Amino acid sequence: MDRVLTNLKMVTMQPEAGYQIIENGMIGIREGKIMFAGHADHEDLHGHPDVIDCHGALVTPGLIDCHTHLIFAGNRANEFEQRLNGVPYEEIAKAGGGILSTVKATREASEDELYELAVQRLNGLKQDGVTTVEIKSGYGLTIDDELKMLRVARRIGEMTDIKVTTTLLAAHALPPEYTGKSDDYIKFVCHEIIPAAAREKLADAVDVFCEGIGFSIEQSQRVFTAAKAHGLSIKGHTEQLSNLGGSALAASMGATSVDHIEYLDEDGVAALAANNTVATLLPGAFYFLRETQYPPIEQLRQQNVPMAIATDFNPGTSPIASLRTMMNMGCTLFRLTPEECLRGVTCNAAQALGLQEARGQIALGMDADLAIWQVETPAELSYRLGVPDLIARVVDGHVFPLNGDQLNVN
Amino acid sequence: MDRVLTNLKMVTMQPEAGYQIIENGMIGIREGKIMFAGHADHEDLHGHPDVIDCHGALVTPGLIDCHTHLIFAGNRANEFEQRLNGVPYEEIAKAGGGILSTVKATREASEDELYELAVQRLNGLKQDGVTTVEIKSGYGLTIDDELKMLRVARRIGEMTDIKVTTTLLAAHALPPEYTGKSDDYIKFVCHEIIPAAAREKLADAVDVFCEGIGFSIEQSQRVFTAAKAHGLSIKGHTEQLSNLGGSALAASMGATSVDHIEYLDEDGVAALAANNTVATLLPGAFYFLRETQYPPIEQLRQQNVPMAIATDFNPGTSPIASLRTMMNMGCTLFRLTPEECLRGVTCNAAQALGLQEARGQIALGMDADLAIWQVETPAELSYRLGVPDLIARVVDGHVFPLNGDQLNVN
Ligand SMILES: [Zn+2]
Ligand SMILES: [Zn+2]
Repeated sequence: MDRVLTNLKMVTMQPEAGYQIIENGMIGIREGKIMFAGHADHEDLHGHPDVIDCHGALVTPGLIDCHTHLIFAGNRANEFEQRLNGVPYEEIAKAGGGILSTVKATREASEDELYELAVQRLNGLKQDGVTTVEIKSGYGLTIDDELKMLRVARRIGEMTDIKVTTTLLAAHALPPEYTGKSDDYIKFVCHEIIPAAAREKLADAVDVFCEGIGFSIEQSQRVFTAAKAHGLSIKGHTEQLSNLGGSALAASMGATSVDHIEYLDEDGVAALAANNTVATLLPGAFYFLRETQYPPIEQLRQQNVPMAIATDFNPGTSPIASLRTMMNMGCTLFRLTPEECLRGVTCNAAQALGLQEARGQIALGMDADLAIWQVETPAELSYRLGVPDLIARVVDGHVFPLNGDQLNVN
Repeated sequence: MDRVLTNLKMVTMQPEAGYQIIENGMIGIREGKIMFAGHADHEDLHGHPDVIDCHGALVTPGLIDCHTHLIFAGNRANEFEQRLNGVPYEEIAKAGGGILSTVKATREASEDELYELAVQRLNGLKQDGVTTVEIKSGYGLTIDDELKMLRVARRIGEMTDIKVTTTLLAAHALPPEYTGKSDDYIKFVCHEIIPAAAREKLADAVDVFCEGIGFSIEQSQRVFTAAKAHGLSIKGHTEQLSNLGGSALAASMGATSVDHIEYLDEDGVAALAANNTVATLLPGAFYFLRETQYPPIEQLRQQNVPMAIATDFNPGTSPIASLRTMMNMGCTLFRLTPEECLRGVTCNAAQALGLQEARGQIALGMDADLAIWQVETPAELSYRLGVPDLIARVVDGHVFPLNGDQLNVN
C-alpha cells in the first residue's frame, strides 16, 4: 500500500441499495486505486508507515459533477440585473445579451484566459468535495473555438487536482453565421467538428441541445450517429422545456445520460429504463428559471432508472458552482431523499459519464477518489449548506486538505 | 490614519438610492472608523506607511446578517431525512423531533460546546463577507439556558473576528414544562428572563414568535412592553404563516424590524412605513418550507419600507449558513433587484439592528467594516454562487484575508 486511511465512517455507496456504511473503516490505497476498503481489523494494514488517522470522520466517494459548462468568458450578471430591473428580454437580446454574448466573449478569449476563469469557478466545486467534473464545450460554435474549449478542459484535468471528462456540445446553439441554416450547421458539426475533436482525442462524449429553441430530433439523431461513428459516447440536453422525444432517441442510441428531463413522459421513462440510461436532474436550472414542471421522479424510481444530480454550472441558467446546493435543491425542490442525492453525485454520476466501473464508490479496484467530511451522517451533506464541512479530498490517492493542518499524518 | 486602502471600486451603499459607486477609491481608517472615503486623488493619504493596494477590487460595506439562530446543539439532519423518506410528521414529533429536540440538546450542552458549534457555522458566513451577525437565543426556554445562549453569543463577539448583536427570544416556543400554560410562561419571560438578561447586559433586543403556533398578539404585546421597560429594543417573527397583526403591533411599539412577513397585508405595510420599521425578508425559510405566499414586495417598495435580507440560520427551517445564497434567493424567488439585495445585507440590515448610524455604509465616521471582492460589479454578489469571490474582510479596520497571501501590503 502507498497510503492507509484509518478511523473512518465509510459511506461506500455501492449502488445496490442504501448508503452501505462501514463504521470504524479503513481504506488502503496503491497506485491511486483502492486496494482495501473494510473494517479496520484487517491486520495487514496496521503499522503501515503512511497511515492517516481520520479521527472518525465520515468519508464518501469523491463527488462527481457530471454536467457543467464551466468554461466560458464574459459576465452575464448585468443581464441578470437588467431583467430584475424590468428591462424587456427583447431589449437585452438586441443589446447583444443572452447566450450569444457568451459565445462572442468566449471566441475572443485565449486559452489562458479561459483556463484562469474556469479554475476560479472550480475552486467552488472543490470546496464541496468534487473530484471529477464533466466540462462541455458549446460557447465556441466554430471548429477552432470548440476545440479551444475542449483543450482548456483537458488542460484543467492535467494541471489541477481534479479529474475532467470532456463533452463536445457544438450543437448547443445556432451560431450567428448560420442564422436560418441550422441543417447546414448540423452538417458542419457532423462532418467537421466531431471528426476533428475525435481525431485530436479532445472529446469523451458528444451532447446536443434537443429542444424547440435548440435542435430537432432529426438533427440530434444525425449528431449522435456521427459521434458513435467516431467512437464517442453520447448524451443529451433533452425534455427541458418541452417533450420532443429526445430522451427516448438518445437512450435508444445508447446515451449514458439524458439531462434536465422536466418534460419527460412515461414512454421516455420506459426508454431510459430499457437502455440503462441515467436521468441527470439539474435542480439549479429548475430553480434559477423558476420552472414549475417537475421531472417525473416517482416514475423514474418505479422503473429503477438511475438518477444523477449536477450543477449545470453556466452563466445563463445556473450560475451556481456548488454541488451540495444541488443536493439540497434535489431534496427541497424535487423531494429526493438525501440518499438519492448522494447517489446522484457519486455512483450514478459516474454512470452518467460511463465511469461506473472506476469511480463513484468506495470499493476494491476503484479509483482512490474520496471526500472526507466533518459531519456525523451522510444526510447532512444534503441538509446543511454554507458551513465548511469538507476536511479533505483524495484524488487518485493524493490527499488535498482544505486547510493544510486538519489531517494528522502520523 | 492607521491604515489606507487604495485602488478600490467602492460600492458605498449610502442609503438614498443606487449603489453610489466611487471608482478609483481610497479608504482611510483610524481607530477602527472610516476617516476618509473618496477618490484616490485626496493627497493627504498618499505615501502613508500602511497602504494596502487592492488592485481595483470591489469593496462593499461588510455584510450584516441581521437574523440568525446560530447557537444550538443537536442535529436535525435525521429528521430532514425521515421526512423525505415519508415518515409522518406526528411520528417524528412523537420520537422527540422538531424544535423541542433542539431545546433538549441545547439545554444539555455546555457553553464551550455551544461556542464551538456556532463558530464552525460562523465560518460559512465569514466566507460570504459577513462582519456583523445578529444571534438569537430561544432554544433554552429556561432562565439559565436562555442566558447561557446569550453569553455564548457575547463570547463569539469578543473572541472572534466578527461583531455580534444579541437578541433574547425566550418567547420562541412554549417549553414542555409549561404545556397548556402559555400565559404563565409569558409572565415568567416578562418578570424573570427579560429583567435578568437586561441586568446582565446580555441582550440588545427582545424578539417574539407571534403566530398561531407561537404566541398571541396580547402575549407579544406584554413581552414588548417588558422589553421596552428594561431599555431593550424590540423586533418580531411576524406574519410568517398567517396574518395576526403582529407586524403592525411591533411597528407601532417602535420595533427596529419585523421578520418573515409573507402574510403581511396593506395595513401592516402602512404601519411599517409610518414607524420606519425594517421589513426583514428570510428567503431561506421560504425556500426550505416550499412556501408559496410571497411577501408583499411591491407594496413595501411603494411605501418606501426598508427591506433587509437575512439567513434565519436555524436547524428546523433554514439550515443555510450563506448570506449570498439568501441574496440570490432574494432575486430569484422574490424578484428583488441585486441592488435591493445588497442594500438588504448592508445599510438596511444595519437599520434592522438599530445600527444605521455606525454600520452598513462606506462613509465618514462609520465603523471600518468592509468586504473586498474579486468581482467586477456588485450585481455579481447576488447573481453567482459557490465561486469563492471574497478576498478579505475588514472588521474595525483590521484586515482578515480569506487566504493569507491575496492582499499585497506594501
Ligand atoms: Zn447544460
Ligand atoms: Zn427566525
